[in-house]
Amino acid sequence: MSSQPLINADRLWTRLMSLAEIGATPAGGVNRQALSDGEIAAWGRVIGWAREAGLTPSTDAAANLFLTLAGRDRAAPPLLLGSHLDSQPTGGKFDGAAGVMAALEAVVSLAEQGGTPARDVIVVAWMNEEGSRFAPGMMGSEAFSGERDIEAIRAARDADGITVGEALDRLHQAFPDVPQRPLGFAASAYLELHIEQGPLLEAADCTIGVVTGIQGKKTFQMVVEGTEGHAGTLAQQQRRDALAAFTRMASALHAEIGAIDADIKFTIGRVTIVPNAPSVVPSRVSFSIDLRHPDNAVLDAASARIMVLCQQNAPPCTVTMTPLVDAPSNVFDADLRSGIAEAAREQGYSAMAILSAAGHDARHLAKICPAAMIFIPCRGGASHVEHEWAEPDHVAAGASVLAQVLRGLVPAPAI
Amino acid sequence: MSSQPLINADRLWTRLMSLAEIGATPAGGVNRQALSDGEIAAWGRVIGWAREAGLTPSTDAAANLFLTLAGRDRAAPPLLLGSHLDSQPTGGKFDGAAGVMAALEAVVSLAEQGGTPARDVIVVAWMNEEGSRFAPGMMGSEAFSGERDIEAIRAARDADGITVGEALDRLHQAFPDVPQRPLGFAASAYLELHIEQGPLLEAADCTIGVVTGIQGKKTFQMVVEGTEGHAGTLAQQQRRDALAAFTRMASALHAEIGAIDADIKFTIGRVTIVPNAPSVVPSRVSFSIDLRHPDNAVLDAASARIMVLCQQNAPPCTVTMTPLVDAPSNVFDADLRSGIAEAAREQGYSAMAILSAAGHDARHLAKICPAAMIFIPCRGGASHVEHEWAEPDHVAAGASVLAQVLRGLVPAPAI
Repeated sequence: MSSQPLINADRLWTRLMSLAEIGATPAGGVNRQALSDGEIAAWGRVIGWAREAGLTPSTDAAANLFLTLAGRDRAAPPLLLGSHLDSQPTGGKFDGAAGVMAALEAVVSLAEQGGTPARDVIVVAWMNEEGSRFAPGMMGSEAFSGERDIEAIRAARDADGITVGEALDRLHQAFPDVPQRPLGFAASAYLELHIEQGPLLEAADCTIGVVTGIQGKKTFQMVVEGTEGHAGTLAQQQRRDALAAFTRMASALHAEIGAIDADIKFTIGRVTIVPNAPSVVPSRVSFSIDLRHPDNAVLDAASARIMVLCQQNAPPCTVTMTPLVDAPSNVFDADLRSGIAEAAREQGYSAMAILSAAGHDARHLAKICPAAMIFIPCRGGASHVEHEWAEPDHVAAGASVLAQVLRGLVPAPAI
Repeated sequence: MSSQPLINADRLWTRLMSLAEIGATPAGGVNRQALSDGEIAAWGRVIGWAREAGLTPSTDAAANLFLTLAGRDRAAPPLLLGSHLDSQPTGGKFDGAAGVMAALEAVVSLAEQGGTPARDVIVVAWMNEEGSRFAPGMMGSEAFSGERDIEAIRAARDADGITVGEALDRLHQAFPDVPQRPLGFAASAYLELHIEQGPLLEAADCTIGVVTGIQGKKTFQMVVEGTEGHAGTLAQQQRRDALAAFTRMASALHAEIGAIDADIKFTIGRVTIVPNAPSVVPSRVSFSIDLRHPDNAVLDAASARIMVLCQQNAPPCTVTMTPLVDAPSNVFDADLRSGIAEAAREQGYSAMAILSAAGHDARHLAKICPAAMIFIPCRGGASHVEHEWAEPDHVAAGASVLAQVLRGLVPAPAI
């Protein structure tokens, strides 16, 4: 290990806070949803920093952003590292952005210190990890790994009826000098730093989480169909009230599925009511289900039970269930995990193995190359909230560990 | 009963269709909101018809329109009959207008046939029954009955920021020759014809509804407060999920309040979830409650029970309840109801007692004088829609029954 710092911690923090100005909310959070004006502005700022350091921007049909530091063997599969730049509508400064900026800092420092890596190193920002504007998320990494068809992705619409295709083309048009590369390419490995989004590292007073894997996740879109009616004239017994049916279903689901065991996570986060007027009996309720557990067998059994409970509570309405995401739990690459633990130990940071409760783009990269993740603590375990916070020292520690693993994978003899 | 018809059915229908040209929508409906240019034009046309028959127009500080046929005893409290000329933004040709035109036809026919009623008879069009431009509705009748302060009414604004006061003064300025009388005066009785706005008369193949009363209505705005969290990382036991609490409350409310008896109407029509994202545990749910019943004691007991059920199901979240509308049920005057039923029987129309599920100006007149309503069928029970429709024969039958009740209350010996 060089005696020179592997990263410039002050620059990393300054840039991360600069990025947080784009889409900043009055309450201190960030609203920078996928393919929005905010994400376009974020691309502009990040590309500027990358070009200053000699990195070359490119993109692909899924609007993933690549920032390449050329290596000695340009034909060899590159090393990828990064995360995402989009946020939840009431998101924070760190979810996604910390991973992209830590990766950029690690690569920019390497370039500045004069090292030419053994192969290309590419900082990546994946398109629409969050899935809040266009559902479901992970569009960029899933298109890259070949799990989802780009045309199906382009057809998805936001609440205003705008398609991913339209928004994506608009983003590309904002960067006419950023060339497109073919969608998907071989990578030698993928590394991602992220805030934990949970309370375990903070509770253990531990700086580095060596992520063992990601808990499995299934999501569904449910639609309850009833019949509209006048709140003042339609007799209760004659109603097919979609909201009444939904609330029966949802309370049964929260009570039973939410109590399966201590590891289950069951969330109904988004509900849309039609026509949503105080004096009209609702005709249609659509709602999201987000189900997570480390054990795939539990996930499968719970999914089947969800449909049973919904059907039991639907009459006189009807209910349909459309699976959206089916991401089984996975285990990250053992060698990369050892490398992260070793780098943390060498740099004097406390480290622990940790399961990721949240999904990440790394789940999809793990299907096409060795992949691993580094977690850093976040205050109170809070994420997807405007007061989301990571300490500057923890951001710097994570980025420095990332930089050391990077340098071990793509040795740069000059430094 | 005279052998001469009590009304001119063709003239009534022609005038009703003529009125429907003012504010006509492409889909065949009417958009003639309170104090709009359309309502000013409707005043002009109706005043013209009234003056032709010797009726005298006047108005008051609430922009109610009065058309007076002088009686023999001009000091005696007059008989009032009418409805309203304003419509919903996508309203129909009959809601309100049918009642004003039936009243005008009954009084004009009486005048033409040379009868001088025992006391003054006044056709009235109440200001802003609908409440769609300026909320809440019933402004004219509530100001007249003394239930609402005229200055508070004048301060209400429409979506463009225009106050009722400004719009009302503009209407008055359009009719400089229509004198203002003091707001509110003693009336001997009030009669209102209206389309049913429900399916019962049509289903029973019945022409005349003798309205027993108007069911009471209470509305509330409920707010459930929890704590936002990440759907993938926040343990189920640590959540304060506002949506989970809402669905427990709502399913308990639908099951218990919705089953009180056959007359109860309980509706949760509008729900707003914050932040309403699939992977975020909701922090806040606000929802509307619309509760209606003919028995005020049932309404009061149900309201208290609603809060108990919400509080029982709230933890670990909190819930607040804000009352919005509190309109008790009323029972219309027994003698007037008998008179309506008797007139229908004599004229050979089928009649049935019927409860009004919707609110009407008559609710407020009933607080200051004997009042009653006549319902006629509307196709499919549809109202507040552009395809709202009443058959010409039903309009004529209702107006003829109204005319007979009128003549019984204010005998005109000459005819």
